[in-house]
Amino acid sequence: MPASKVFFIYAWLNPSYAGKLALLLIYYSSCVLTAILKPVFSILALVLLSTMSFTHPQARSWIDVKPGSDFPIQNLPFGIFKTRSKSPRAGVAIGEYILDLEVLYAEGYFNRTPLADHGNVFAEGTLNKFIGLGKAITRPVRERIAEILNTNNPELRDNADIKQKALVAQTEAQMLMPVHVPNYTDFYSSIEHATNVGKMFRDPANPLLPNWKHLPVGYHGRASSIVVSGTPIHRPKGQTKPDDAPAPVFGPSRSLDFELEVAFVTNANTALGQSISTRKAEEYIFGLVLFNDWSARDIQKWEYVPLGPFLGKNFGSTVSPWIVTLEALEPFRTDTPAQEPAVLPYLQFEGKKSYDIHLEVEIMPESGKGMVVTRTNFKYMYWNMAQQLAHHTVNGCNICVGDLYASGTISGPDAGSYGSLLEITWQGKNPLKMPDGTERKFLLDGDTVIMRGYCEKDGLRIGFGECAGKILPAV
Amino acid sequence: MPASKVFFIYAWLNPSYAGKLALLLIYYSSCVLTAILKPVFSILALVLLSTMSFTHPQARSWIDVKPGSDFPIQNLPFGIFKTRSKSPRAGVAIGEYILDLEVLYAEGYFNRTPLADHGNVFAEGTLNKFIGLGKAITRPVRERIAEILNTNNPELRDNADIKQKALVAQTEAQMLMPVHVPNYTDFYSSIEHATNVGKMFRDPANPLLPNWKHLPVGYHGRASSIVVSGTPIHRPKGQTKPDDAPAPVFGPSRSLDFELEVAFVTNANTALGQSISTRKAEEYIFGLVLFNDWSARDIQKWEYVPLGPFLGKNFGSTVSPWIVTLEALEPFRTDTPAQEPAVLPYLQFEGKKSYDIHLEVEIMPESGKGMVVTRTNFKYMYWNMAQQLAHHTVNGCNICVGDLYASGTISGPDAGSYGSLLEITWQGKNPLKMPDGTERKFLLDGDTVIMRGYCEKDGLRIGFGECAGKILPAV
Repeated sequence: MPASKVFFIYAWLNPSYAGKLALLLIYYSSCVLTAILKPVFSILALVLLSTMSFTHPQARSWIDVKPGSDFPIQNLPFGIFKTRSKSPRAGVAIGEYILDLEVLYAEGYFNRTPLADHGNVFAEGTLNKFIGLGKAITRPVRERIAEILNTNNPELRDNADIKQKALVAQTEAQMLMPVHVPNYTDFYSSIEHATNVGKMFRDPANPLLPNWKHLPVGYHGRASSIVVSGTPIHRPKGQTKPDDAPAPVFGPSRSLDFELEVAFVTNANTALGQSISTRKAEEYIFGLVLFNDWSARDIQKWEYVPLGPFLGKNFGSTVSPWIVTLEALEPFRTDTPAQEPAVLPYLQFEGKKSYDIHLEVEIMPESGKGMVVTRTNFKYMYWNMAQQLAHHTVNGCNICVGDLYASGTISGPDAGSYGSLLEITWQGKNPLKMPDGTERKFLLDGDTVIMRGYCEKDGLRIGFGECAGKILPAV
Repeated sequence: MPASKVFFIYAWLNPSYAGKLALLLIYYSSCVLTAILKPVFSILALVLLSTMSFTHPQARSWIDVKPGSDFPIQNLPFGIFKTRSKSPRAGVAIGEYILDLEVLYAEGYFNRTPLADHGNVFAEGTLNKFIGLGKAITRPVRERIAEILNTNNPELRDNADIKQKALVAQTEAQMLMPVHVPNYTDFYSSIEHATNVGKMFRDPANPLLPNWKHLPVGYHGRASSIVVSGTPIHRPKGQTKPDDAPAPVFGPSRSLDFELEVAFVTNANTALGQSISTRKAEEYIFGLVLFNDWSARDIQKWEYVPLGPFLGKNFGSTVSPWIVTLEALEPFRTDTPAQEPAVLPYLQFEGKKSYDIHLEVEIMPESGKGMVVTRTNFKYMYWNMAQQLAHHTVNGCNICVGDLYASGTISGPDAGSYGSLLEITWQGKNPLKMPDGTERKFLLDGDTVIMRGYCEKDGLRIGFGECAGKILPAV
């Protein structure tokens, strides 16, 4: 096939403005123009084609994507799923379906991508191998998936046999942990959350500790107990010390809480001693998930001095199953809040490094009468992800493929936007009234906590799906 | 071969008192006794044989083990090594040699052990698969290795060909990380260390925080930056806030320290929600390593409120390469110090759950004139390992094969037995005078810190080898 024909098809599949212009240029260069103008027009067409993306806002898929879906062709988040007949494997969400990447690889759909040399990494039970290939490979693979799903592309659309094998209804699939998590860090980067906690437990006049505005405070969490959305969590037992008791007591936590967070997943194994600058940080971030950092406030309060949270947190954390790539979030970049006092040079950054992601939490009691208890936004975070990663590695700490770095509880500026029951009910002083008539100071057995997140602009919606977990009674 | 002959050989190979008596019984039962007494004597011999161990104190190996060696036949610690011609694989230390377990497995030496069905797990680059088989398999495998090395056993001793393949001089080998570490927890279980730190940084009159005697305080550390003995560590850079400075500054740490610790390695993946009792805890502990929890005191001091240590610790931790099994440490069990007030029921335990392990730290400057700066003992720990593991899992936190659980800095009751320079020099107020005339408040670039540990009783010495690391200048 002559190159001009390949370009023509490529541009035709991609009916963005760039694609339409490229089509015109190729047409003129191939049949109309004089010998002098031909190469000029061809080069112009090539330049246009190189900037084209199959996830541009006008792109549509031959798979029906309902309005309000979290998963249009512009999203294409990666996850791991299984069905009754399929072993755990990688897929991307599209509308109400999962596209089985293991099948597509096996059928040769990635033969002309840089993935071809790396074997069927989609057959693994986690995304670590794929993610670890780095953006030089994962970016074009995502573009290729968008190309396959493009409404004008007959490759898979008109191949009933393979389509039947490669498309799975999300209702038929069980989602699994998207990555094996070698290391998990939890930051504390919401100024509203840190202020609220400081007011409650320390000094209402000086709620922030002296270090807070100088560095993104963080600590290491427990990687082993991170589970995927849908996994029930048993109410933890542990030591607590009621204020009026002479000694600690043992029993189920009486102040079990959620923490609304967003976590990023890294895509490289760096060497011990290597640092990552704020400028390069996003190249190391594959994508984001919603994260529920379940917390037993009473256990935490008694145990946490002087070395930080431990059993109050490590009984379980829940992640949403789909990793939304930074590429999908690109249109939703926004400014980080002003940082005053100025930060040290290694924490300084250029450009829009925050993301405008709407977040909400619903509590669904066993009665089935649920209520959204908070609405907030990821953009409120005082410290952005590039700063978090630069800080984490400035001492030479190495990172691994699949590491999770969670934001810390995300609270907004007003009471309707707090990211935990601790803040929403202000330590239980203002209980929530639920639609079924019950009250909540903290979570009750049988409550399901459902977190949702999405970006929205000009009719484009990029969503995270759900991050849900039900509280079971203590064992 | 008739069963009686097998038993005879087994007893003869094992010249312990039990073995000698068994020999006698088998001899009498097979050729002397009346029909009535024969089965009685046979059963008695069988009972004796079942209690026999090839690692009894009298056992000797056909490999020359010099007096004072850390690695007699009673030790047999497991590690991962490679040489110029051998890929990474498992071995046990014996005298000045490493026994190559990959070769022994391939040559059929484990055919009659429960390992036979599990493939050559010794060919892996870590011990995780082997350790994860659990003590029902790792215990008899260790016994079989002792049997192979027994001075009276010709199986390997007289097979020059295989012996040449299976024995590697330790000087020819490079030791690697013995396990992949999925999770790392650091406790704070030395009452002397916690008291010293409390005196320096908090209230000299009330140095221990209220929770300290009620639970083994701990926190999650960074697993990715744990390295094997011999790996150099770059002095970390980071934020610090000098007392007289108006704002934090950035640069290399000026108070880099070691922390002398012992860590245990777990051998199972438990389910989320499962707890491990103090009674069963030791079944989940494969063995112990020495652990240097390098600490940048100035970075830690500024960052650690309210969520605990982070960049002050996660630039690197060093482990000794040989995992000494709990079985090897059995003769050195000792009582845990009295705990007052009484602990909650889930932390109570029976029997001797502490271990008498001598520990020391040497600082070796580039001048080559080193000095042992502390001598202490693992038995001083207020909380024992069974309590640590029971506490860690009482809320349902799951553990993994290869997890490391470190003791926290081990300090003894007097100044010569403190486990960190922070305590030895009392925050730099009493600098150490080194043999080369230099002083140490904290570590200098070029210093190598060498930790050693060993048990000793009645001429039996079970050692850990060295846990060493050299401080390189900041990058």
